[in-house]
Amino acid sequence: MSTERQEALRAWFLGPRAENGDLLERLVVEALRDHIFWRRNYHPEDGFVIRETDKRSEGYDAAVARLTQELMELLASLKRGVPFFSGRYKGHMSFEQTIAAQVGYFAAMLYNPNNVAVEGSPVTTRLELEVAAQLGRMIGYDPATSWGHLTSGGTVANFEALWIARNVRYLPVAAAGAAEALGVSLEVRRPDGSEARLERLSLWEVLNVGGAEALDLWGKLWAAAPEADVRRALAEHSFVTVGYQDYSRRLAYAYGDALPAAVVLVAATAHYSWDKIVRALGIGSNQLVHVPVDERFRMDPDALWERVRELAARRVPIMACVSVCGTTEESAVDRLDLVLEVRERAERELGVTFHVHSDAAYGGYAAAVTWRADGTRRGADEIRAGVGVDWPSADWLRAMEALAGADSVTIDPHKLGYVPYPAGAFLLRDRRARELVAVDPPYLLPTQGLDSAQDLFLGRFIFEGSKPGAAAAAVWLSHAVLPLDERGYGYLVERTVAGAYRLHAALRDADLGEFRVVLLPEPDINIVCYIVTHPALEGLAAVNALNEGIYARMSLAEPGATPEYILTRTRFQTPMYDGAVRPLLERLGIPLEEWVASGPAGLVVLRSTVMDPFLAEPGGADHVAGYLAALRRAAEAALAA
Amino acid sequence: MSTERQEALRAWFLGPRAENGDLLERLVVEALRDHIFWRRNYHPEDGFVIRETDKRSEGYDAAVARLTQELMELLASLKRGVPFFSGRYKGHMSFEQTIAAQVGYFAAMLYNPNNVAVEGSPVTTRLELEVAAQLGRMIGYDPATSWGHLTSGGTVANFEALWIARNVRYLPVAAAGAAEALGVSLEVRRPDGSEARLERLSLWEVLNVGGAEALDLWGKLWAAAPEADVRRALAEHSFVTVGYQDYSRRLAYAYGDALPAAVVLVAATAHYSWDKIVRALGIGSNQLVHVPVDERFRMDPDALWERVRELAARRVPIMACVSVCGTTEESAVDRLDLVLEVRERAERELGVTFHVHSDAAYGGYAAAVTWRADGTRRGADEIRAGVGVDWPSADWLRAMEALAGADSVTIDPHKLGYVPYPAGAFLLRDRRARELVAVDPPYLLPTQGLDSAQDLFLGRFIFEGSKPGAAAAAVWLSHAVLPLDERGYGYLVERTVAGAYRLHAALRDADLGEFRVVLLPEPDINIVCYIVTHPALEGLAAVNALNEGIYARMSLAEPGATPEYILTRTRFQTPMYDGAVRPLLERLGIPLEEWVASGPAGLVVLRSTVMDPFLAEPGGADHVAGYLAALRRAAEAALAA
Repeated sequence: MSTERQEALRAWFLGPRAENGDLLERLVVEALRDHIFWRRNYHPEDGFVIRETDKRSEGYDAAVARLTQELMELLASLKRGVPFFSGRYKGHMSFEQTIAAQVGYFAAMLYNPNNVAVEGSPVTTRLELEVAAQLGRMIGYDPATSWGHLTSGGTVANFEALWIARNVRYLPVAAAGAAEALGVSLEVRRPDGSEARLERLSLWEVLNVGGAEALDLWGKLWAAAPEADVRRALAEHSFVTVGYQDYSRRLAYAYGDALPAAVVLVAATAHYSWDKIVRALGIGSNQLVHVPVDERFRMDPDALWERVRELAARRVPIMACVSVCGTTEESAVDRLDLVLEVRERAERELGVTFHVHSDAAYGGYAAAVTWRADGTRRGADEIRAGVGVDWPSADWLRAMEALAGADSVTIDPHKLGYVPYPAGAFLLRDRRARELVAVDPPYLLPTQGLDSAQDLFLGRFIFEGSKPGAAAAAVWLSHAVLPLDERGYGYLVERTVAGAYRLHAALRDADLGEFRVVLLPEPDINIVCYIVTHPALEGLAAVNALNEGIYARMSLAEPGATPEYILTRTRFQTPMYDGAVRPLLERLGIPLEEWVASGPAGLVVLRSTVMDPFLAEPGGADHVAGYLAALRRAAEAALAA
Repeated sequence: MSTERQEALRAWFLGPRAENGDLLERLVVEALRDHIFWRRNYHPEDGFVIRETDKRSEGYDAAVARLTQELMELLASLKRGVPFFSGRYKGHMSFEQTIAAQVGYFAAMLYNPNNVAVEGSPVTTRLELEVAAQLGRMIGYDPATSWGHLTSGGTVANFEALWIARNVRYLPVAAAGAAEALGVSLEVRRPDGSEARLERLSLWEVLNVGGAEALDLWGKLWAAAPEADVRRALAEHSFVTVGYQDYSRRLAYAYGDALPAAVVLVAATAHYSWDKIVRALGIGSNQLVHVPVDERFRMDPDALWERVRELAARRVPIMACVSVCGTTEESAVDRLDLVLEVRERAERELGVTFHVHSDAAYGGYAAAVTWRADGTRRGADEIRAGVGVDWPSADWLRAMEALAGADSVTIDPHKLGYVPYPAGAFLLRDRRARELVAVDPPYLLPTQGLDSAQDLFLGRFIFEGSKPGAAAAAVWLSHAVLPLDERGYGYLVERTVAGAYRLHAALRDADLGEFRVVLLPEPDINIVCYIVTHPALEGLAAVNALNEGIYARMSLAEPGATPEYILTRTRFQTPMYDGAVRPLLERLGIPLEEWVASGPAGLVVLRSTVMDPFLAEPGGADHVAGYLAALRRAAEAALAA
């Protein structure tokens, strides 16, 4: 199979020399003509509003001339774009897209379906739910009870996760208020397994009812009284209706107890968008509690446990814990299995629970490597034999398999799914939770009260409204050509890991004259990070300046720059990276005090994402050698400057 | 010019018979080949990773076969999509896209730029800011002080508006806290024009400092103390960091005063997404205060004044007032000029102010009709003469020109801009306000501290992260071909209004046998709404059932349906529509009590959006006559059923 996949890989992309240009053109033209003749076959008796004689008019001709001319302008300016497709681009998480995704997007765009509701997208709404189910299966979710959909990107998907998590967390409060109003007494199981009457719980206990238990409570409530009464009572007490300002007051009044503001735990390496998200949700960035990472840039489970213990001691409710699967800076994969163990322990020992979300926006597709074509899981040895490098570890596999236990997961097809923007995905393990954020708009309701029609009206359950059905078609066609297992995406991700390891090893062994490369550990997926230093440099600022200088020479940051190879850089900042940066500082000979005092400047780290599956392949230029040569020249020029 | 525009219109779209199929194909292939040869010209010395011999391998061939086969499957299923392009589709706000937008999207998608930051989109980030500036100019914003960007759609743009509005409203609170911490005394102007020391204001007064004044305060603060100190003090007191839970407590403590939760005023006709937005922001849907609409479905300015007065009397802070320009159900255009007058009066007489946002997601592009090619404004008579119907009124023009006075505006290019999804736009009158929601991510920072480079890193200031540069290219090319004035979009919108008025008049005069059509007033833009009734029907439920029956026969709601003409329907619900629905009920002979008791079922209204600019054009089938005939048949069948 290895040969077959290797051969297939060469048909999946347009290619760095547009080697598959004829294939892409054939398919694009096919899709276009197919659409054209669909139109022509729809009520041909309707005649023409645009006639051949119209096309001979001056105004028509002028409009075509203007269109063609402006297109030429656009095409000319697009050439100043970034050559993501080339083996010379080793910067951000950008590469070209699969031909399937490109053609799928284009084909559906001609129809311009709107996936907000099935009425405007009878085909692509179904495709969207299908690809979400495929992604769900890939991470081990049960298709019968889970749910998912596409978003414009990871930010919105992460936002939805926290939006839902908050409503699940506060659901027992609403249930308690509603139950009292309805004169109903509900039984509830505490995180430690003990049973109690909901009305007897303290606010602290109510806010620590488990997610599944909370949703069960909800079900019990609907069963206990007439629907209209429950609806009214829930609206009266739900967070979504009441809002923060009155909610806080009511809680303090109802329970005679004002707990501290609820927090969200995130790995110190979490994406900056989490800051936006907690600000927008009204949670406040003070309530974003960073959990230190270890030397592999993964959330430290011991540190997590300490944080949870300490928060519990102060009775600070924990709304959610965000674990990362594939950090955007280092592609680090948190040990989600251990994170889930911490939660279990917290439930048992502290009576504390919280929503666990995995931000797998970048790394989610790597779960494809864990699957055989027959739907069984692969072992680490089996995968390693195929990849040809010392990856993955058994621990890595455990972390990926643990995605099945996360309450929600974000995966972006427009990252390691090689699909054009915009395509993020949000996956929810217990689909009942989506009802907590559902709204009922006046239009677009299904004619019949079919459950399936309800399901197909996505706008009810998701944050966004109008959205491109073309994105769903792109993901669908790409998944159809590259299955989410060892034959398709699994193989693709493996090849990028092989390329990243090749680059990592080459940097380790490189002869850069007097320059020295201080590398981060081998990545959990495919991002290679390092710092270049030189014996003449003393202190953090000098090392940063060298690496900034290299970046300036190996990027498109300067308008008009034509670097031979392209990389990017990030900044590790204190205190988020304290747990990870110590060995790097030691090897750089930089005193810890300088790091502690570095503030926003931090430590500049050069960074190359290897999404290029051809880097470890024979044929073409040796881009690893080329990269090293360019790096040496850039370092020399930067030092001289 | 009229003839020239009429001729040009026929070159702008692919056409209902794909009459311009050869043009679109030529341009698509041109764009594709242009991209292909760009790749081939980039370091041609790099050789090939995909070789001709590779293409002769079994694995390659199998992959191509799979790709082609699956594409055929996709193309086949897409044919079950909605014929938005046809004159027979008169349903939702969907039509086909301009050829310019389609080709622009496709051309840029091949490069797949990511507009989160200029580093991944050196071309399309600039195009995005350019089109936002064009839209800003169209609504009368000053390009020197305003700002805007594209979003995935109207929901996100509206969300950003309220997100920013909240932070502007709470900024003086943060400034007061920071000033106290820094030992600085700041002067501030109250809404009524009087000056005062910020520290002397009551909480009610602080929350009623005007937006521009608040941003000035911010500037004064930065000037009054060292930057690092101001940064620290502001972070200590800003809503984005503190979050709702602690903020409410602190305010109550600092001012000895707990005001009621702040509210958001929206027109009763506002889009359902506002409910999502206030829920997600933590404001709570209880705080969404609906302002009644008048019989033209526009926010009633007298009712608005009453609401404001009553809220002021109870000292309820008003975070923002959302006015609608082109309701999604009726295309009603609020008298924004009068809304702004109400705010001025509230400032003067009540010392109360608030952010005014215009949700012009649907109607924004109609502002193009107000501009001559030379950049001067057109009068109502001049426009009416061109359109050939009694539209627009002088009042309508005043409302459109008042957009310049809104603090923020949402406009969706993927609605009346005829651009593929996803393309919304958010416009901000005072660009300083964007800083209040800005975050600083560790990567993607500009090498140099240029203001322009800061500006080009959109991800700092906007809610979303990764986003398609292709959308910006699509909007840009479409604007380049269809200017935002009487020559381009203005003419296009006019033609749809002419079509809508033609349909409206035909429905008024139609012979539907015993059936009678009760029409809403002539629309402010191009959505025609009506209810069909019959002498045999008594009561609201019976009339609703007839119209539901018509909808079922004239829509794609049932799988496999092949209606001759397609419309859609909405539901007017109490109490939101109380101010508008009375004349309709009278003409339907439905007692008011039935309406009051109707609940979520409401009044079913048939609805046809006329985005088709050819409906009022000669040539082709007479789709107005066809629509009426289909309506009569559907009504008869529905009544019989």
